[in-house]
Amino acid sequence: MISGLLMKEFTSLLGRENVFTDKADLVTYSYDAAVLDRVVPAAILRPSNYELVGKIVGLCNENSVPVTVRGAGTNLSGGTIPSANGVVLVTNALNNILEINEEDMYAVVQPGVVTAKLAAAVESKGLFYPPDPGSQAVSTIGGNVAENAGGLRGLKYGVTKDYVMGLKFFDACGNEVKTGSRTVKCVTGYNLTGLMVGSEGTLGIIYEVILKLIPLPLHRKSMIAVFNDTAMASGTVAAIIANRIVPATLEFMDNFTIRAVEKHSRAGLPLDAAALLLIEVDGHPAQVDEDAEKVESICRKNGATSLHVAQTASERDKIWAARRSALSALAQLKPTLVLEDATVPRSKIPEMVRAIENIGKRYNLAVGTFGHAGDGNLHPTILTDRRDTVEWKRVEDAIKEIFEKALALGGTLSGEHGIGLAKLRFLKDEIGAGAVLFSKNIKSALDPKNILNPGKVIGE
Amino acid sequence: MISGLLMKEFTSLLGRENVFTDKADLVTYSYDAAVLDRVVPAAILRPSNYELVGKIVGLCNENSVPVTVRGAGTNLSGGTIPSANGVVLVTNALNNILEINEEDMYAVVQPGVVTAKLAAAVESKGLFYPPDPGSQAVSTIGGNVAENAGGLRGLKYGVTKDYVMGLKFFDACGNEVKTGSRTVKCVTGYNLTGLMVGSEGTLGIIYEVILKLIPLPLHRKSMIAVFNDTAMASGTVAAIIANRIVPATLEFMDNFTIRAVEKHSRAGLPLDAAALLLIEVDGHPAQVDEDAEKVESICRKNGATSLHVAQTASERDKIWAARRSALSALAQLKPTLVLEDATVPRSKIPEMVRAIENIGKRYNLAVGTFGHAGDGNLHPTILTDRRDTVEWKRVEDAIKEIFEKALALGGTLSGEHGIGLAKLRFLKDEIGAGAVLFSKNIKSALDPKNILNPGKVIGE
Repeated sequence: MISGLLMKEFTSLLGRENVFTDKADLVTYSYDAAVLDRVVPAAILRPSNYELVGKIVGLCNENSVPVTVRGAGTNLSGGTIPSANGVVLVTNALNNILEINEEDMYAVVQPGVVTAKLAAAVESKGLFYPPDPGSQAVSTIGGNVAENAGGLRGLKYGVTKDYVMGLKFFDACGNEVKTGSRTVKCVTGYNLTGLMVGSEGTLGIIYEVILKLIPLPLHRKSMIAVFNDTAMASGTVAAIIANRIVPATLEFMDNFTIRAVEKHSRAGLPLDAAALLLIEVDGHPAQVDEDAEKVESICRKNGATSLHVAQTASERDKIWAARRSALSALAQLKPTLVLEDATVPRSKIPEMVRAIENIGKRYNLAVGTFGHAGDGNLHPTILTDRRDTVEWKRVEDAIKEIFEKALALGGTLSGEHGIGLAKLRFLKDEIGAGAVLFSKNIKSALDPKNILNPGKVIGE
Repeated sequence: MISGLLMKEFTSLLGRENVFTDKADLVTYSYDAAVLDRVVPAAILRPSNYELVGKIVGLCNENSVPVTVRGAGTNLSGGTIPSANGVVLVTNALNNILEINEEDMYAVVQPGVVTAKLAAAVESKGLFYPPDPGSQAVSTIGGNVAENAGGLRGLKYGVTKDYVMGLKFFDACGNEVKTGSRTVKCVTGYNLTGLMVGSEGTLGIIYEVILKLIPLPLHRKSMIAVFNDTAMASGTVAAIIANRIVPATLEFMDNFTIRAVEKHSRAGLPLDAAALLLIEVDGHPAQVDEDAEKVESICRKNGATSLHVAQTASERDKIWAARRSALSALAQLKPTLVLEDATVPRSKIPEMVRAIENIGKRYNLAVGTFGHAGDGNLHPTILTDRRDTVEWKRVEDAIKEIFEKALALGGTLSGEHGIGLAKLRFLKDEIGAGAVLFSKNIKSALDPKNILNPGKVIGE
């Protein structure tokens, strides 16, 4: 429980307008995009500058009150589900782009900056911030860093961690910690930046991020390849990579997903296709033309029945908007949507797609599969109703089998969604007892009272 | 002191031929490439498989004996200087490339694999491992990972940490820890890979490394631009980057270094040039031609008196061999060479070059400056004789001023050499008390007996 005294301290610190304790508010912050039980926190705190963040953390530590930081709450693994009796620290008032340095190609931002807003701001200066999680229109940079978010451009451009040059954060006691630099190279001290990225708010509370930017690619070409057979589509993914072509984006969508997306967004996708690949190549115009030609020829050789290259920017945008709508489109079909992100080495994509189809059939579940096939990161998405306890048991078993298959293929439990609470029980299967112990030692040394987003990533 | 009993255990474990205790052997391992006092260890151990590494670490922990891992000992910050009464664990018998996966573009190697050997092996398959520290002909991957080594290609391709997908290592107790994956994306558990890279052997002992590979660029073009004025050369570096061109390599060399290199390697460098830029652009042929043209025009606009493009592969190799010989060439001039790597945001390179010239003159020291100007990472190199205590005092003061200037320009103490022992006293000036405390908490939690390369990176 939070004492009345502590609540008063929060209120005098932040002002009454930035402390929320009404039931309706608390319930709003009791869940995220993962299918997990709600946990209603004790209070919502909305600091408007970083000094206040530090003071909140200090007070929480003194009083042993758990703190869960929340950006937009788009988390798919339960990382933003708070603790009962804990506080939620929302970052939406810390939403300033502090600097875009064109000469040295970096940006400095507060954690609450929306990803797409930053991307647009740097693009207007001819620069490029590549990480583009599916939720970029609402997700925040702080959340992206805490989860090491991926996105559609992972195979060519990498993920969030590849763009974080430095951080400022508060440790569990509220001390300021600075790591990394505005320089391209920096090996001064431990790579705390690397450790913090993806630590899901369990090791410190980030209040400033330095992000690497790169020149905007000169040219882009997007295309859709249509397949009558999912195996041919997935085989094409592996063939493109094996031919040493690295598209900016290489997405897979099965028939189930195509139908849902088309119903939702009327993008003109072929309803009878077994699978689509959505591909974008970018870079120097000559390179783009050559890569596009090679990709086209590999697609045809591997059984694509038709291939369409977007002729205008608006047509291109339409393709990607359709792809980005996949999650919302699927979510409308049934009360509960479980989005997974088991990831395999890219050459194993055909086998993984086959396995997911097979598991879906065997457990008699509605599964739509789409995702970043080009980096081995598929999103098998199960549509269900969690209140149907009989089916839910089958869902859980199916997920377990999907994970086991991914690990058997040399893959990982999570490509980009994080472990959060949702995948905790599988963690040891992948990383082993040694890594779990090592991680717990780090956690308990850095957060001895276990106030920072307790229970996430490595459990209690 | 290592007890006779423990020595016996080492010998029965490794065989007499892999345990060295003769004075001549011990002295050989008492120093590295940094200018620091020698520390003679108690024994040298040479395990030939990873299980033996784990057993050595376990025994050292039980007996509270410090372990310093050593690859090729090219370390420039004292990271491989052992502890008195400690052991040196040499990795040169752990030198197998375990896998080069062409389909999924990664390699799995043991820590003792020589960097250039791996680079050649993957290149023969049309793949590319970009990190190329100056010492790549002898340096090992394990050392590169432990130091997060940089090199000439940092500005376009990043540094070692950008290529480490996963690690296996032993913690201080000898437990096996596995982190990362063979997949492009992986967010399962803490990013221990990120933490371990650059931790200089103080948090665990690495025995296997998964490295990302990329397709080999199709085409390369190398050129030399000659300047009568160092300010014009350094201004050109900033101008190239500000024009959104990212060469593969963009190196600076001042007249002092040019003369030393030419004397050493007879590459035909212009002895009267105030400074040279050595530039390589790579990628698609059309992109390369365009970038080369733009670079040429920027060089001329910024005062280059002549510009020479290498016409053949052997001519290109000659340019880079000359550049790579800079360190050895300078080392022949005086008994002691101090190579620094203060790094600044790239737009500050002109100011940093000016400051280094000024500091060299003011302290009346022989300074050659060269390095990876394109990523802001200069190597001001002081030639001196450490036995000359009067001059040595001036050297120390000059280094301090160089660091202060780099930090004042928003830079860092070390771009790629690490903190080791050499820069410890400046660490707090850059990262602050909060980051030092946070780091020490990690270290003491993970290595409670302080046996893993004690004293390095964050001090005692």
